[in-house]
Amino acid sequence: MTTPGTAGGPGELMAAEIAEQPTVLARAFHQSRPQVRAVAARLQKAGPRFVVLAGRGSSDHAALYGKYLIETGLGLPCGLASLSTLTGYDAEPELSDVLWIAVSQSGSSPDLVESTQKAARAGALTLALTNRPESPLASAAELHIDVGAGPELSVAATKTYTAQLQALWLLIDAVRGGNGDAARAVPDAVAEVLEADAVSGLRDRFRYVERLITVGRGFSYPTARESALKLMETSYLAAHAFSGADLMHGPLAMVDQDGPVVVVAPRGIAGRLLVPVLSALRERRADVVVVGDPALAHEHRARVCVPVPSRVEGALSSLVEIVPLQRLALELALDRRLDPDHPRGLSKVTETT
Amino acid sequence: MTTPGTAGGPGELMAAEIAEQPTVLARAFHQSRPQVRAVAARLQKAGPRFVVLAGRGSSDHAALYGKYLIETGLGLPCGLASLSTLTGYDAEPELSDVLWIAVSQSGSSPDLVESTQKAARAGALTLALTNRPESPLASAAELHIDVGAGPELSVAATKTYTAQLQALWLLIDAVRGGNGDAARAVPDAVAEVLEADAVSGLRDRFRYVERLITVGRGFSYPTARESALKLMETSYLAAHAFSGADLMHGPLAMVDQDGPVVVVAPRGIAGRLLVPVLSALRERRADVVVVGDPALAHEHRARVCVPVPSRVEGALSSLVEIVPLQRLALELALDRRLDPDHPRGLSKVTETT
Repeated sequence: MTTPGTAGGPGELMAAEIAEQPTVLARAFHQSRPQVRAVAARLQKAGPRFVVLAGRGSSDHAALYGKYLIETGLGLPCGLASLSTLTGYDAEPELSDVLWIAVSQSGSSPDLVESTQKAARAGALTLALTNRPESPLASAAELHIDVGAGPELSVAATKTYTAQLQALWLLIDAVRGGNGDAARAVPDAVAEVLEADAVSGLRDRFRYVERLITVGRGFSYPTARESALKLMETSYLAAHAFSGADLMHGPLAMVDQDGPVVVVAPRGIAGRLLVPVLSALRERRADVVVVGDPALAHEHRARVCVPVPSRVEGALSSLVEIVPLQRLALELALDRRLDPDHPRGLSKVTETT
Repeated sequence: MTTPGTAGGPGELMAAEIAEQPTVLARAFHQSRPQVRAVAARLQKAGPRFVVLAGRGSSDHAALYGKYLIETGLGLPCGLASLSTLTGYDAEPELSDVLWIAVSQSGSSPDLVESTQKAARAGALTLALTNRPESPLASAAELHIDVGAGPELSVAATKTYTAQLQALWLLIDAVRGGNGDAARAVPDAVAEVLEADAVSGLRDRFRYVERLITVGRGFSYPTARESALKLMETSYLAAHAFSGADLMHGPLAMVDQDGPVVVVAPRGIAGRLLVPVLSALRERRADVVVVGDPALAHEHRARVCVPVPSRVEGALSSLVEIVPLQRLALELALDRRLDPDHPRGLSKVTETT
């Protein structure tokens, strides 16, 4: 295949930022360590009992990833913030013993800044994860972690997303007393996925697709959400993400033989939890693509499999699985003569209140 | 227009259950009072500090409504449960001081029953809202409220959804020391919406729609989610719900002149929060339908307005706004010669694990 986005054309920025991820993740791993350790020590000392995470767009999906990490790794109940209750309805919550984590690439959206300030006044310990240490959000929170992705110029977030996931993983691992070592395998796994160019088979297949479903469960659910957002914002597809269980409670009805479904089914628990979904989709003769475990893909007769290297497992798979799907969004956009670096009507910093 | 679903045809059950809502809500208001008061007294005494709500499908949207109610009305931080962390990843959470609320029409889905049992063992005070007091979920939870909708036979949930919302509203009102009186206006408002037949103008307009976006914010966001689910499960549309703020962070790119967008914009805060979204949609020349406030619809030049009576306001609007959208789902399904009472591949009780 041709290299997308070379020579200053559309998608050049997104292509470069996708390709940069192995380097970015390896660098950020080392750079963020002292900060991550200091914040982890502070969290161990504070001993929060509940966690609320806040984010928008891709950062909301990173927040969702954080929710799974914290619930499974720390055993603390978590919620994703409904920001309008603070910024629109002026709720006055009691947030002592609460850890508030705001995730944002730019650290600039007014609703995140305002709600983080309110959370701090309401007694929460506040932590911001941003890609801009000099941002208003980083200043508003008591604690800050720089995800260290370097400047991201394409409107479609790619490397900041995987860097957010890595920072969250390292943080929760450190709170649990880990040394973060398992994450060292991630950059090579991402590089392997990029070299394998495993989505080239999907490019033609999805050339004229207008609607598409993505499905995940557990740690692969944020991947399903994030890949649907990438497809929506770059290729203007009606890409709809569901957790496997939610799909079964109603939306399954709209899946038919014409309906392409991308199932993010890695090895391990997330993949096993998706087995009933894969069976139901096979019964309906849906056009299923599996991103993840080739054995699951084979067993459930997926039409296409995008394999993900087995060198990373569990929660870390999410940092790798998303990469071929970022690439798919880029390529589908280019085929449609769109510029994924500058989607219509969007700018890099979205300010919502 | 003709009355949908008469004479034993497709959609008869759904049509009858939609029409029954004024009666059901008035009856459930009185029937549930003693139970609601007893549970409210128990919650006041227990003084939970964090709330986790769990549900699937329509009940998940009722849970989301409960989250807004609790955050704005009680000032407690809330989260929606990620059930797989308990049922798949075997998280062992510490849930003392946590109120766990499971919402389910049937009270039968194994994942809800199992996670509620685990939450109780982990120290949470557990409450089930179901439409079946004899269900496993009702037995699994320490506290139970029967939402009192009576038997629901259509696969597409309608009256159980509004009854769930009413039960949640009455409960939180009672915990705040209210007497529930404001809810007395709801049945007449629902009857007025049904009589006005305000969606008949949309029926032809959406006859051949294949994809559609619904948008809400704050208390109107659960309505946007629930109406998208109704459209997906009965008419097999790719109906995609967004909170107004999330739409601005990416998915806005996929809206164009061809894109129908249903904005649930009631009078009051939720409507005001949607003003930037209505402006952005107008700039993009989207085909906007406003359900709610005719003044907002006029100001932002919505192509169609489905007015909602002004006799109920704030959080209670959600019990009324959903009704014309249930009707729309029914009518679009009938026009497509589908049977919304029996969507393909779904049964009334969905069992997920």
